[in-house]
Amino acid sequence: MARVYNFSAGPAMLPESVLQQACDEMLDWRGSGMCVAEMSHRGKEYMSIAAEAEADLRELLNVPNNYKVLFLQGGASSQFAAVPMNLLRGGSSADYINTGSWSKKAISEARHYCSNVNVAATTEESKFTRAPVPAEIQLSGDAAYLHYTPNETIEGVEFAYIPETGGCPLVADMSSTLLSRPIDISRFGLIYAGAQKNIGPAGLTIVIVREDLIGMPIAGTPTMFDYKIHADNDSMYNTPATYAWYLAGLVFKWLKDLGGLDAMAIINQRKAALLYNAIDSSSFYANPVQPTDRSWMNVPFTLANPALDDAFLKGAKAANLTTLKGHRSVGGMRASIYNAMPEAGVAALVEFMREFERTQG
Amino acid sequence: MARVYNFSAGPAMLPESVLQQACDEMLDWRGSGMCVAEMSHRGKEYMSIAAEAEADLRELLNVPNNYKVLFLQGGASSQFAAVPMNLLRGGSSADYINTGSWSKKAISEARHYCSNVNVAATTEESKFTRAPVPAEIQLSGDAAYLHYTPNETIEGVEFAYIPETGGCPLVADMSSTLLSRPIDISRFGLIYAGAQKNIGPAGLTIVIVREDLIGMPIAGTPTMFDYKIHADNDSMYNTPATYAWYLAGLVFKWLKDLGGLDAMAIINQRKAALLYNAIDSSSFYANPVQPTDRSWMNVPFTLANPALDDAFLKGAKAANLTTLKGHRSVGGMRASIYNAMPEAGVAALVEFMREFERTQG
Repeated sequence: MARVYNFSAGPAMLPESVLQQACDEMLDWRGSGMCVAEMSHRGKEYMSIAAEAEADLRELLNVPNNYKVLFLQGGASSQFAAVPMNLLRGGSSADYINTGSWSKKAISEARHYCSNVNVAATTEESKFTRAPVPAEIQLSGDAAYLHYTPNETIEGVEFAYIPETGGCPLVADMSSTLLSRPIDISRFGLIYAGAQKNIGPAGLTIVIVREDLIGMPIAGTPTMFDYKIHADNDSMYNTPATYAWYLAGLVFKWLKDLGGLDAMAIINQRKAALLYNAIDSSSFYANPVQPTDRSWMNVPFTLANPALDDAFLKGAKAANLTTLKGHRSVGGMRASIYNAMPEAGVAALVEFMREFERTQG
Repeated sequence: MARVYNFSAGPAMLPESVLQQACDEMLDWRGSGMCVAEMSHRGKEYMSIAAEAEADLRELLNVPNNYKVLFLQGGASSQFAAVPMNLLRGGSSADYINTGSWSKKAISEARHYCSNVNVAATTEESKFTRAPVPAEIQLSGDAAYLHYTPNETIEGVEFAYIPETGGCPLVADMSSTLLSRPIDISRFGLIYAGAQKNIGPAGLTIVIVREDLIGMPIAGTPTMFDYKIHADNDSMYNTPATYAWYLAGLVFKWLKDLGGLDAMAIINQRKAALLYNAIDSSSFYANPVQPTDRSWMNVPFTLANPALDDAFLKGAKAANLTTLKGHRSVGGMRASIYNAMPEAGVAALVEFMREFERTQG
């Protein structure tokens, strides 16, 4: 079968050239006689692979020197606990912005560690179809940090701005947006992201943290959740997810070859515009999100007649357009169009949508 | 370059046929048009891969129905905290046997959660060159569980028996021994193992736990460290390490094709005997471990003249025998000969050792 255009929200498509290179190097990485997955993480071959991946990520994101870049395990779900465990630093209160499903999970976990989780803003009244405007964000003043979710994978809502915090460390779950465009890392105290959208395979989690914020975990923090331990050991306190880290490194090279995040942002904006225009120009399809706050990465949409959902999914699959079913909490469809989704894939989806409307509408 | 015989303690060799199959399926898993790393973990293709891997592991180890098998992240180092967090169950005391470096790490982490960690036996006086005999193990009576390390990867010490606990749940860090031979799972309350020795790539951690022991985590346990959460969600509470899980599944098929753990045990015993015999029959090489307690998986040995260590390593590498340097805490050499190390690899090492002794001795 041909390769499909896979619109999964994550794990998601990887660049075909990355998969091809991984395959070419599977039995023998550059004359080493080993697959990267077989290498000791303490050996010089693997150490060079790991260091080069970190250097490339730092270059892509222009990470300042006073930030640590960690390659961890456990997914963003582990960070929901690790963030308060590490960043409360003697405090007991934290601010959270609630913009959807993943914000809620972060808030719920934070309540286990904070005596006060202040919801600094919520858009629940809109059914999470928008981001808050800056004036809606009410900081509590004594919070150890402000946490938000710049892109909500399920609702397809993305912040078009970075919240101002007046010096309070800003923490962002960037799982579904990191590497989609340039960002000013210096505005953040901590950024985390599960890899399985824009970075690499599931099982790797990136944490970028300002180094003055770490080293004071609360009592009971597992050693493996202590950022300082990982920072002091170059993410090799224990055996890291070596093969996933290597694949992420190949993705970083691919991004650099494409021209980095400036170039990627132009492509991503174009892909998103193509799909949203197709939705908006038809009464057959609809996206509920306020246009200014629409995600470049995750595009939920509904059919005017939900009775046609199954036929849509079946027809799409026949056209090699897969994993378009929407999240059960939202319904309808969702097209996740991360970095590795080619523009031709979005064009093929739009073409299919028009044809489906013409024949079924 | 030809494939090498890689004696790394972990990450370690994978079966060549597994790597070849992963390569063959890299761009298109069985007509899906996707790499397994690109598949949604909620999709039917991936669900079938995950379920089949679990079924094969259960079959290999003959896991009773009242045990859950979890596919987690974070390595054995995360389990050092997760075990007390989940298994104290209202108690505050646990028994630990200290047989070397990994036991010590487990004990150190347990002290964060237990008001009393009773060292039920230690062989530190022997510099960890033996396992305790059964009569040396002093259970405290009020411990929530007894933890031990059946195989110490660094010291190369392995228990030839399973400790009797009189009903106290027995917990084992089997990272470097699981799947090397048949075991009676019903003797254990919980077994955990990082994948990167006998199971698959680093980044995957297997936990096998008796289901009546879970569901009472201590306050402050991260959701991601709560076994019950993972058990109730078939290890898909969050996105698991999907590709590592798939590769582990290929390893399980390879083991089944070889005849399962009975067959593997015969091969492993033969490989270990070949290497220990070579060491013992020469005054040029030495292994300090009491013969009854020698590991089948990790064989540390020293040269009578340590000034020859570098020449040994260099010559071995030239003969395609890699990663033989011993752990810094022990010195000398270490040959890890996990399941995926072919008998021909051990034979080649023994041949090289004899030749090195003849020319340098």
